[in-house]
Amino acid sequence: MNSFQTIYRVSYSDTDQMGYMHHSNYFKYYETARWELFRSIGIPYHEIEKDDIILPVINATAKFIKPAVYDQEIRIITRVKSFKGARIMFEYRALNEAGEIINEAQVTVACVRKAPAKPVSLQKLS
Amino acid sequence: MNSFQTIYRVSYSDTDQMGYMHHSNYFKYYETARWELFRSIGIPYHEIEKDDIILPVINATAKFIKPAVYDQEIRIITRVKSFKGARIMFEYRALNEAGEIINEAQVTVACVRKAPAKPVSLQKLS
Amino acid sequence: MNSFQTIYRVSYSDTDQMGYMHHSNYFKYYETARWELFRSIGIPYHEIEKDDIILPVINATAKFIKPAVYDQEIRIITRVKSFKGARIMFEYRALNEAGEIINEAQVTVACVRKAPAKPVSLQKLS
Amino acid sequence: MNSFQTIYRVSYSDTDQMGYMHHSNYFKYYETARWELFRSIGIPYHEIEKDDIILPVINATAKFIKPAVYDQEIRIITRVKSFKGARIMFEYRALNEAGEIINEAQVTVACVRKAPAKPVSLQKLS
Repeated sequence: MNSFQTIYRVSYSDTDQMGYMHHSNYFKYYETARWELFRSIGIPYHEIEKDDIILPVINATAKFIKPAVYDQEIRIITRVKSFKGARIMFEYRALNEAGEIINEAQVTVACVRKAPAKPVSLQKLS
Repeated sequence: MNSFQTIYRVSYSDTDQMGYMHHSNYFKYYETARWELFRSIGIPYHEIEKDDIILPVINATAKFIKPAVYDQEIRIITRVKSFKGARIMFEYRALNEAGEIINEAQVTVACVRKAPAKPVSLQKLS
Repeated sequence: MNSFQTIYRVSYSDTDQMGYMHHSNYFKYYETARWELFRSIGIPYHEIEKDDIILPVINATAKFIKPAVYDQEIRIITRVKSFKGARIMFEYRALNEAGEIINEAQVTVACVRKAPAKPVSLQKLS
Repeated sequence: MNSFQTIYRVSYSDTDQMGYMHHSNYFKYYETARWELFRSIGIPYHEIEKDDIILPVINATAKFIKPAVYDQEIRIITRVKSFKGARIMFEYRALNEAGEIINEAQVTVACVRKAPAKPVSLQKLS
Protein backbone atom coordinates (compact mmCIF):
# COMPACT_ATOMS: atom_id res chain seq x y z
CA MET A 1 0.00 0.00 0.00
CA ASN A 2 1.11 3.53 -0.71
CA SER A 3 1.19 6.31 1.81
CA PHE A 4 -1.96 8.05 2.97
CA GLN A 5 -2.28 11.73 3.86
CA THR A 6 -4.44 13.52 6.40
CA ILE A 7 -4.36 17.21 7.32
CA TYR A 8 -4.82 18.29 10.90
CA ARG A 9 -5.03 21.86 12.23
CA VAL A 10 -3.52 22.31 15.70
CA SER A 11 -6.28 23.41 18.08
CA TYR A 12 -5.88 25.73 21.05
CA SER A 13 -6.44 22.93 23.54
CA ASP A 14 -3.57 20.99 21.93
CA THR A 15 -1.08 23.61 23.08
CA ASP A 16 0.68 23.87 26.42
CA GLN A 17 2.28 26.85 28.11
CA MET A 18 5.48 26.37 26.10
CA GLY A 19 3.38 27.58 23.19
CA TYR A 20 3.73 24.27 21.33
CA MET A 21 1.41 21.32 20.73
CA HIS A 22 1.84 19.02 23.73
CA HIS A 23 3.88 16.00 22.67
CA SER A 24 1.22 13.49 23.81
CA ASN A 25 -1.20 14.85 21.21
CA TYR A 26 0.80 13.53 18.26
CA PHE A 27 -0.24 10.05 19.32
CA LYS A 28 -3.91 11.07 19.19
CA TYR A 29 -3.59 12.43 15.66
CA TYR A 30 -1.60 9.42 14.52
CA GLU A 31 -4.43 7.26 15.80
CA THR A 32 -6.99 9.25 13.82
CA ALA A 33 -4.70 9.08 10.77
CA ARG A 34 -4.40 5.29 10.85
CA TRP A 35 -8.14 4.78 11.09
CA GLU A 36 -8.64 7.25 8.21
CA LEU A 37 -6.25 5.06 6.23
CA PHE A 38 -8.36 2.03 7.20
CA ARG A 39 -11.56 3.86 6.22
CA SER A 40 -10.00 4.66 2.82
CA ILE A 41 -9.58 0.94 2.11
CA GLY A 42 -13.12 0.14 3.23
CA ILE A 43 -12.56 -0.98 6.84
CA PRO A 44 -13.80 1.71 9.24
CA TYR A 45 -12.37 1.01 12.67
CA HIS A 46 -15.78 1.11 14.36
CA GLU A 47 -16.77 -1.90 12.21
CA ILE A 48 -13.79 -3.83 13.57
CA GLU A 49 -14.86 -3.17 17.16
CA LYS A 50 -18.41 -4.29 16.37
CA ASP A 51 -16.87 -7.72 15.77
CA ASP A 52 -15.38 -7.58 19.31
CA ILE A 53 -11.89 -7.05 18.00
CA ILE A 54 -9.83 -4.15 19.34
CA LEU A 55 -6.48 -2.88 18.13
CA PRO A 56 -4.67 -1.49 21.18
CA VAL A 57 -1.27 0.16 20.81
CA ILE A 58 1.56 -2.09 22.00
CA ASN A 59 4.51 0.02 20.92
CA ALA A 60 5.02 3.68 20.10
CA THR A 61 8.11 5.67 19.34
CA ALA A 62 8.42 9.25 18.13
CA LYS A 63 11.10 11.79 17.32
CA PHE A 64 10.03 15.40 17.89
CA ILE A 65 12.08 17.39 15.38
CA LYS A 66 10.37 20.78 15.34
CA PRO A 67 7.44 22.08 17.38
CA ALA A 68 3.91 22.39 16.04
CA VAL A 69 2.16 25.61 16.96
CA TYR A 70 -1.44 26.70 17.33
CA ASP A 71 -3.46 27.00 14.13
CA GLN A 72 -0.76 25.41 11.98
CA GLU A 73 -1.87 22.84 9.45
CA ILE A 74 0.03 19.60 9.93
CA ARG A 75 0.17 17.07 7.10
CA ILE A 76 0.41 13.52 8.40
CA ILE A 77 1.71 10.83 6.07
CA THR A 78 0.80 7.32 7.22
CA ARG A 79 2.15 4.07 5.84
CA VAL A 80 1.67 0.45 6.88
CA LYS A 81 5.23 -0.64 7.45
CA SER A 82 4.63 -4.26 8.38
CA PHE A 83 1.78 -6.59 8.93
CA LYS A 84 2.41 -9.96 10.42
CA GLY A 85 0.39 -12.31 12.61
CA ALA A 86 -1.74 -10.16 14.87
CA ARG A 87 0.41 -7.01 14.60
CA ILE A 88 0.35 -3.98 12.33
CA MET A 89 3.14 -1.42 12.39
CA PHE A 90 2.34 2.07 11.13
CA GLU A 91 4.98 4.58 10.14
CA TYR A 92 4.28 8.30 10.32
CA ARG A 93 5.78 11.56 9.19
CA ALA A 94 4.24 14.90 10.14
CA LEU A 95 5.07 17.99 8.05
CA ASN A 96 4.40 21.64 8.74
CA GLU A 97 3.09 24.18 6.21
CA ALA A 98 6.65 24.87 4.99
CA GLY A 99 6.95 21.17 4.12
CA GLU A 100 9.49 20.51 6.87
CA ILE A 101 9.32 17.19 8.70
CA ILE A 102 8.46 18.03 12.31
CA ASN A 103 7.82 14.54 13.65
CA GLU A 104 8.58 10.94 12.74
CA ALA A 105 6.97 8.01 14.51
CA GLN A 106 6.18 4.32 14.49
CA VAL A 107 3.15 2.87 16.22
CA THR A 108 2.37 -0.86 16.45
CA VAL A 109 -1.09 -2.17 17.27
CA ALA A 110 -2.13 -5.73 18.10
CA CYS A 111 -5.38 -7.39 17.05
CA VAL A 112 -7.05 -8.65 20.20
CA ARG A 113 -10.45 -10.30 20.69
CA LYS A 114 -12.24 -8.28 23.35
CA ALA A 115 -13.56 -10.98 25.68
CA PRO A 116 -11.83 -13.22 26.48
CA ALA A 117 -8.69 -11.29 25.50
CA LYS A 118 -6.52 -13.23 23.07
CA PRO A 119 -4.70 -12.31 19.85
CA VAL A 120 -6.44 -13.16 16.57
CA SER A 121 -5.03 -13.45 13.08
CA LEU A 122 -5.87 -10.61 10.74
CA GLN A 123 -7.92 -12.75 8.38
CA LYS A 124 -10.66 -12.53 11.00
CA LEU A 125 -11.06 -8.87 10.10
CA SER A 126 -12.32 -9.51 6.57
CA MET B 1 -24.21 15.28 53.38
CA ASN B 2 -21.36 17.62 54.14
CA SER B 3 -18.79 18.88 51.68
CA PHE B 4 -15.90 16.73 50.52
CA GLN B 5 -12.40 17.98 49.67
CA THR B 6 -9.86 16.80 47.12
CA ILE B 7 -6.55 18.42 46.22
CA TYR B 8 -5.35 18.46 42.66
CA ARG B 9 -2.03 19.77 41.36
CA VAL B 10 -2.23 21.37 37.89
CA SER B 11 -0.07 19.34 35.49
CA TYR B 12 1.88 20.71 32.54
CA SER B 13 -0.41 19.03 30.03
CA ASP B 14 -3.38 20.81 31.65
CA THR B 15 -2.04 24.19 30.53
CA ASP B 16 -2.52 25.91 27.18
CA GLN B 17 -0.47 28.64 25.53
CA MET B 18 -2.26 31.33 27.55
CA GLY B 19 -0.31 29.91 30.47
CA TYR B 20 -3.45 28.82 32.29
CA MET B 21 -5.16 25.47 32.87
CA HIS B 22 -7.41 24.92 29.85
CA HIS B 23 -11.01 25.51 30.89
CA SER B 24 -12.18 22.06 29.72
CA ASN B 25 -9.95 20.39 32.32
CA TYR B 26 -11.99 21.64 35.27
CA PHE B 27 -14.72 19.24 34.20
CA LYS B 28 -12.26 16.33 34.31
CA TYR B 29 -11.18 17.17 37.85
CA TYR B 30 -14.74 17.72 38.98
CA GLU B 31 -15.52 14.23 37.67
CA THR B 32 -12.66 12.73 39.66
CA ALA B 33 -13.78 14.72 42.71
CA ARG B 34 -17.36 13.43 42.62
CA TRP B 35 -16.24 9.81 42.36
CA GLU B 36 -13.82 10.36 45.24
CA LEU B 37 -16.81 11.62 47.22
CA PHE B 38 -18.68 8.43 46.23
CA ARG B 39 -15.69 6.29 47.19
CA SER B 40 -15.62 8.01 50.60
CA ILE B 41 -19.16 6.84 51.30
CA GLY B 42 -18.41 3.29 50.16
CA ILE B 43 -19.65 3.36 46.56
CA PRO B 44 -16.69 3.36 44.17
CA TYR B 45 -17.90 4.41 40.73
CA HIS B 46 -16.37 1.36 39.03
CA GLU B 47 -18.71 -0.81 41.15
CA ILE B 48 -21.69 1.12 39.79
CA GLU B 49 -20.65 0.44 36.20
CA LYS B 50 -20.20 -3.26 36.96
CA ASP B 51 -23.97 -3.29 37.55
CA ASP B 52 -24.44 -1.86 34.02
CA ILE B 53 -25.40 1.53 35.34
CA ILE B 54 -23.63 4.61 34.03
CA LEU B 55 -23.87 8.18 35.26
CA PRO B 56 -23.36 10.43 32.24
CA VAL B 57 -23.28 14.20 32.64
CA ILE B 58 -26.47 15.84 31.43
CA ASN B 59 -25.81 19.39 32.54
CA ALA B 60 -22.70 21.39 33.39
CA THR B 61 -22.17 25.03 34.17
CA ALA B 62 -19.06 26.79 35.41
CA LYS B 63 -17.88 30.28 36.23
CA PHE B 64 -14.16 30.80 35.70
CA ILE B 65 -13.21 33.49 38.23
CA LYS B 66 -9.41 33.36 38.29
CA PRO B 67 -7.00 31.25 36.24
CA ALA B 68 -5.26 28.16 37.58
CA VAL B 69 -1.60 27.93 36.66
CA TYR B 70 0.90 25.11 36.29
CA ASP B 71 1.99 23.37 39.48
CA GLN B 72 -0.58 25.15 41.63
CA GLU B 73 -2.46 23.05 44.15
CA ILE B 74 -6.19 23.42 43.66
CA ARG B 75 -8.55 22.48 46.46
CA ILE B 76 -11.89 21.22 45.14
CA ILE B 77 -14.89 21.26 47.45
CA THR B 78 -17.69 18.98 46.28
CA ARG B 79 -21.21 18.84 47.64
CA VAL B 80 -24.30 16.90 46.58
CA LYS B 81 -26.74 19.69 45.99
CA SER B 82 -29.79 17.66 45.04
CA PHE B 83 -30.71 14.10 44.47
CA LYS B 84 -34.06 13.28 42.95
CA GLY B 85 -35.32 10.50 40.75
CA ALA B 86 -32.49 9.45 38.49
CA ARG B 87 -30.52 12.71 38.81
CA ILE B 88 -27.75 13.90 41.09
CA MET B 89 -26.58 17.51 41.06
CA PHE B 90 -23.08 18.21 42.34
CA GLU B 91 -21.91 21.66 43.35
CA TYR B 92 -18.23 22.58 43.20
CA ARG B 93 -15.92 25.29 44.35
CA ALA B 94 -12.22 25.31 43.44
CA LEU B 95 -9.77 27.33 45.54
CA ASN B 96 -6.16 28.25 44.88
CA GLU B 97 -3.33 28.09 47.43
CA ALA B 98 -4.19 31.60 48.67
CA GLY B 99 -7.70 30.34 49.52
CA GLU B 100 -9.33 32.38 46.76
CA ILE B 101 -12.27 30.86 44.89
CA ILE B 102 -11.13 30.46 41.30
CA ASN B 103 -14.02 28.42 39.92
CA GLU B 104 -17.62 27.59 40.80
CA ALA B 105 -19.60 24.92 39.02
CA GLN B 106 -22.63 22.67 38.99
CA VAL B 107 -22.68 19.32 37.25
CA THR B 108 -25.72 17.06 36.99
CA VAL B 109 -25.48 13.37 36.16
CA ALA B 110 -28.27 10.95 35.29
CA CYS B 111 -28.43 7.29 36.33
CA VAL B 112 -28.88 5.28 33.17
CA ARG B 113 -28.99 1.51 32.66
CA LYS B 114 -26.37 0.75 30.00
CA ALA B 115 -28.28 -1.59 27.70
CA PRO B 116 -31.01 -0.95 26.90
CA ALA B 117 -30.58 2.71 27.88
CA LYS B 118 -33.27 3.91 30.25
CA PRO B 119 -33.23 5.92 33.49
CA VAL B 120 -33.28 3.98 36.76
CA SER B 121 -34.15 5.17 40.21
CA LEU B 122 -31.26 5.65 42.61
CA GLN B 123 -32.34 2.85 44.95
CA LYS B 124 -30.98 0.46 42.34
CA LEU B 125 -27.48 1.60 43.21
CA SER B 126 -27.57 0.16 46.72
CA MET C 1 -24.13 37.97 12.31
CA ASN C 2 -25.62 34.73 11.09
CA SER C 3 -24.74 31.31 12.37
CA PHE C 4 -21.54 29.57 11.37
CA GLN C 5 -21.13 25.82 10.87
CA THR C 6 -18.20 23.52 11.47
CA ILE C 7 -18.12 19.74 11.17
CA TYR C 8 -16.15 17.65 13.62
CA ARG C 9 -15.62 13.89 13.57
CA VAL C 10 -15.42 12.29 17.02
CA SER C 11 -11.97 10.74 17.43
CA TYR C 12 -11.15 7.60 19.39
CA SER C 13 -9.29 9.55 22.07
CA ASP C 14 -12.42 11.67 22.61
CA THR C 15 -14.31 8.65 23.93
CA ASP C 16 -14.34 7.26 27.44
CA GLN C 17 -15.23 3.79 28.68
CA MET C 18 -18.95 4.61 28.62
CA GLY C 19 -18.51 4.51 24.86
CA TYR C 20 -19.41 8.19 24.46
CA MET C 21 -17.42 11.34 23.78
CA HIS C 22 -16.25 12.58 27.19
CA HIS C 23 -18.31 15.63 28.16
CA SER C 24 -15.25 17.85 28.64
CA ASN C 25 -14.38 17.55 24.96
CA TYR C 26 -17.41 19.53 23.81
CA PHE C 27 -15.75 22.61 25.25
CA LYS C 28 -12.64 21.95 23.16
CA TYR C 29 -14.63 21.71 19.95
CA TYR C 30 -16.70 24.75 20.80
CA GLU C 31 -13.43 26.64 21.24
CA THR C 32 -12.22 25.54 17.81
CA ALA C 33 -15.63 26.45 16.36
CA ARG C 34 -15.59 30.01 17.70
CA TRP C 35 -12.13 30.70 16.33
CA GLU C 36 -13.16 29.26 12.95
CA LEU C 37 -16.04 31.75 13.05
CA PHE C 38 -13.50 34.51 13.81
CA ARG C 39 -11.25 33.31 10.98
CA SER C 40 -14.23 33.45 8.61
CA ILE C 41 -14.63 37.17 9.30
CA GLY C 42 -10.93 37.86 8.86
CA ILE C 43 -9.72 37.80 12.48
CA PRO C 44 -7.71 34.61 13.12
CA TYR C 45 -7.36 34.14 16.86
CA HIS C 46 -3.57 33.80 16.68
CA GLU C 47 -3.46 37.37 15.34
CA ILE C 48 -5.36 38.57 18.41
CA GLU C 49 -2.82 36.95 20.75
CA LYS C 50 0.05 38.55 18.79
CA ASP C 51 -1.34 41.87 20.04
CA ASP C 52 -1.07 40.55 23.63
CA ILE C 53 -4.79 40.17 23.99
CA ILE C 54 -6.21 36.85 25.17
CA LEU C 55 -9.82 35.74 25.31
CA PRO C 56 -10.13 33.36 28.26
CA VAL C 57 -13.43 31.64 29.00
CA ILE C 58 -15.21 33.18 31.98
CA ASN C 59 -18.48 31.28 31.80
CA ALA C 60 -19.58 28.01 30.23
CA THR C 61 -22.81 26.09 30.42
CA ALA C 62 -23.91 23.05 28.46
CA LYS C 63 -26.84 20.68 28.25
CA PHE C 64 -25.90 17.17 27.14
CA ILE C 65 -29.02 15.87 25.38
CA LYS C 66 -27.77 12.79 23.53
CA PRO C 67 -24.35 11.16 23.51
CA ALA C 68 -21.85 11.56 20.68
CA VAL C 69 -20.12 8.35 19.69
CA TYR C 70 -16.84 7.46 18.01
CA ASP C 71 -16.53 8.31 14.32
CA GLN C 72 -19.79 10.25 14.24
CA GLU C 73 -19.78 13.55 12.38
CA ILE C 74 -21.01 16.33 14.64
CA ARG C 75 -22.22 19.57 13.11
CA ILE C 76 -21.57 22.55 15.37
CA ILE C 77 -23.58 25.71 14.83
CA THR C 78 -22.01 28.77 16.43
CA ARG C 79 -23.59 32.17 16.89
CA VAL C 80 -22.42 35.35 18.62
CA LYS C 81 -25.23 35.91 21.07
CA SER C 82 -24.02 39.11 22.66
CA PHE C 83 -21.07 41.38 22.50
CA LYS C 84 -20.70 44.10 25.07
CA GLY C 85 -17.75 45.80 26.69
CA ALA C 86 -14.98 43.28 26.96
CA ARG C 87 -17.25 40.19 26.75
CA ILE C 88 -18.44 38.00 23.91
CA MET C 89 -21.08 35.33 24.46
CA PHE C 90 -21.18 32.46 21.99
CA GLU C 91 -24.18 30.17 21.61
CA TYR C 92 -23.75 26.64 20.32
CA ARG C 93 -25.84 23.77 19.08
CA ALA C 94 -24.30 20.42 18.15
CA LEU C 95 -26.21 18.04 15.86
CA ASN C 96 -25.57 14.42 15.00
CA GLU C 97 -25.76 12.88 11.53
CA ALA C 98 -29.50 12.32 11.93
CA GLY C 99 -29.91 16.08 12.46
CA GLU C 100 -30.84 15.68 16.13
CA ILE C 101 -29.62 18.29 18.61
CA ILE C 102 -27.27 16.47 20.96
CA ASN C 103 -25.83 19.44 22.85
CA GLU C 104 -26.63 23.07 23.52
CA ALA C 105 -24.19 25.45 25.15
CA GLN C 106 -23.23 29.02 25.90
CA VAL C 107 -19.64 30.11 26.39
CA THR C 108 -18.57 33.63 27.36
CA VAL C 109 -15.04 34.92 26.83
CA ALA C 110 -13.48 38.11 28.14
CA CYS C 111 -10.97 40.27 26.27
CA VAL C 112 -7.95 40.67 28.52
CA ARG C 113 -4.62 42.37 27.85
CA LYS C 114 -1.96 39.78 28.66
CA ALA C 115 0.50 41.78 30.78
CA PRO C 116 -0.51 43.54 32.89
CA ALA C 117 -3.85 41.71 32.92
CA LYS C 118 -6.78 44.08 32.52
CA PRO C 119 -9.93 44.05 30.38
CA VAL C 120 -9.84 45.99 27.11
CA SER C 121 -12.70 47.22 24.99
CA LEU C 122 -13.30 45.29 21.79
CA GLN C 123 -12.40 48.18 19.51
CA LYS C 124 -8.79 47.43 20.41
CA LEU C 125 -9.07 44.23 18.37
CA SER C 126 -9.45 46.02 15.04
CA MET D 1 20.63 9.18 41.19
CA ASN D 2 18.31 6.48 42.42
CA SER D 3 14.83 5.82 41.15
CA PHE D 4 11.88 7.99 42.15
CA GLN D 5 8.31 6.80 42.66
CA THR D 6 4.99 8.50 42.05
CA ILE D 7 1.53 7.00 42.32
CA TYR D 8 -1.18 7.93 39.87
CA ARG D 9 -4.82 6.82 39.91
CA VAL D 10 -6.35 6.37 36.44
CA SER D 11 -9.20 8.87 36.05
CA TYR D 12 -12.38 8.32 34.07
CA SER D 13 -11.38 10.84 31.42
CA ASP D 14 -8.14 8.88 30.88
CA THR D 15 -10.09 5.92 29.52
CA ASP D 16 -11.31 5.33 26.00
CA GLN D 17 -14.09 3.09 24.73
CA MET D 18 -11.80 0.06 24.77
CA GLY D 19 -12.10 0.38 28.54
CA TYR D 20 -8.39 1.09 28.96
CA MET D 21 -6.36 4.21 29.67
CA HIS D 22 -5.70 5.82 26.27
CA HIS D 23 -2.06 5.22 25.32
CA SER D 24 -1.32 8.94 24.86
CA ASN D 25 -1.97 9.56 28.56
CA TYR D 26 1.09 7.63 29.71
CA PHE D 27 3.20 10.44 28.28
CA LYS D 28 1.28 12.98 30.39
CA TYR D 29 1.89 11.04 33.59
CA TYR D 30 5.51 10.45 32.74
CA GLU D 31 5.86 14.21 32.33
CA THR D 32 4.35 14.83 35.75
CA ALA D 33 6.59 12.10 37.20
CA ARG D 34 9.82 13.62 35.88
CA TRP D 35 8.99 17.06 37.25
CA GLU D 36 8.11 15.49 40.62
CA LEU D 37 11.57 13.91 40.52
CA PHE D 38 13.02 17.38 39.79
CA ARG D 39 10.98 18.90 42.63
CA SER D 40 12.35 16.22 44.98
CA ILE D 41 15.90 17.41 44.28
CA GLY D 42 14.97 21.06 44.76
CA ILE D 43 14.42 22.18 41.15
CA PRO D 44 10.68 22.67 40.51
CA TYR D 45 10.12 22.82 36.75
CA HIS D 46 8.22 26.12 36.97
CA GLU D 47 11.42 27.72 38.33
CA ILE D 48 13.29 26.53 35.24
CA GLU D 49 10.78 28.16 32.92
CA LYS D 50 11.02 31.42 34.88
CA ASP D 51 14.62 31.56 33.65
CA ASP D 52 13.32 31.29 30.07
CA ILE D 53 14.52 27.73 29.70
CA ILE D 54 12.12 25.07 28.49
CA LEU D 55 12.62 21.32 28.33
CA PRO D 56 10.61 20.07 25.34
CA VAL D 57 10.43 16.36 24.58
CA ILE D 58 12.61 15.41 21.60
CA ASN D 59 12.25 11.64 21.76
CA ALA D 60 9.73 9.25 23.30
CA THR D 61 9.33 5.53 23.10
CA ALA D 62 7.03 3.23 25.02
CA LYS D 63 6.08 -0.42 25.21
CA PHE D 64 2.51 -1.04 26.30
CA ILE D 65 2.61 -4.41 28.04
CA LYS D 66 -0.71 -4.58 29.87
CA PRO D 67 -3.63 -2.16 29.90
CA ALA D 68 -4.32 0.25 32.75
CA VAL D 69 -7.97 0.47 33.73
CA TYR D 70 -10.14 3.07 35.43
CA ASP D 71 -9.52 3.67 39.11
CA GLN D 72 -6.39 1.53 39.19
CA GLU D 73 -3.40 2.91 41.07
CA ILE D 74 -0.36 2.98 38.83
CA ARG D 75 3.10 3.22 40.37
CA ILE D 76 5.54 5.06 38.12
CA ILE D 77 9.26 4.54 38.67
CA THR D 78 11.37 7.27 37.09
CA ARG D 79 15.13 7.26 36.65
CA VAL D 80 17.52 9.67 34.95
CA LYS D 81 19.23 7.36 32.50
CA SER D 82 21.64 9.83 30.93
CA PHE D 83 22.46 13.45 31.10
CA LYS D 84 24.80 14.95 28.56
CA GLY D 85 25.11 18.36 27.00
CA ALA D 86 21.63 19.80 26.72
CA ARG D 87 19.78 16.46 26.88
CA ILE D 88 18.29 14.43 29.69
CA MET D 89 16.97 10.92 29.10
CA PHE D 90 14.39 9.59 31.57
CA GLU D 91 13.57 5.93 31.92
CA TYR D 92 10.17 4.83 33.20
CA ARG D 93 8.44 1.72 34.41
CA ALA D 94 4.75 1.70 35.32
CA LEU D 95 3.39 -1.02 37.58
CA ASN D 96 -0.18 -1.97 38.42
CA GLU D 97 -1.52 -2.80 41.88
CA ALA D 98 -0.45 -6.45 41.47
CA GLY D 99 3.13 -5.25 40.96
CA GLU D 100 3.18 -6.23 37.27
CA ILE D 101 5.04 -4.00 34.84
CA ILE D 102 2.42 -2.61 32.48
CA ASN D 103 4.50 -0.05 30.60
CA GLU D 104 8.15 0.74 29.95
CA ALA D 105 9.29 3.97 28.35
CA GLN D 106 12.13 6.34 27.64
CA VAL D 107 11.64 10.06 27.16
CA THR D 108 14.38 12.52 26.23
CA VAL D 109 14.06 16.26 26.78
CA ALA D 110 16.33 19.02 25.49
CA CYS D 111 17.22 22.19 27.38
CA VAL D 112 16.33 25.11 25.15
CA ARG D 113 16.46 28.84 25.83
CA LYS D 114 13.00 30.17 25.04
CA ALA D 115 13.77 33.22 22.90
CA PRO D 116 15.81 33.08 20.78
CA ALA D 117 15.58 29.27 20.74
CA LYS D 118 18.98 27.65 21.15
CA PRO D 119 20.24 24.75 23.30
CA VAL D 120 21.95 25.64 26.57
CA SER D 121 24.25 23.57 28.70
CA LEU D 122 22.74 22.19 31.88
CA GLN D 123 24.97 24.22 34.16
CA LYS D 124 22.73 27.17 33.36
CA LEU D 125 19.98 25.51 35.38
CA SER D 126 21.83 25.82 38.67
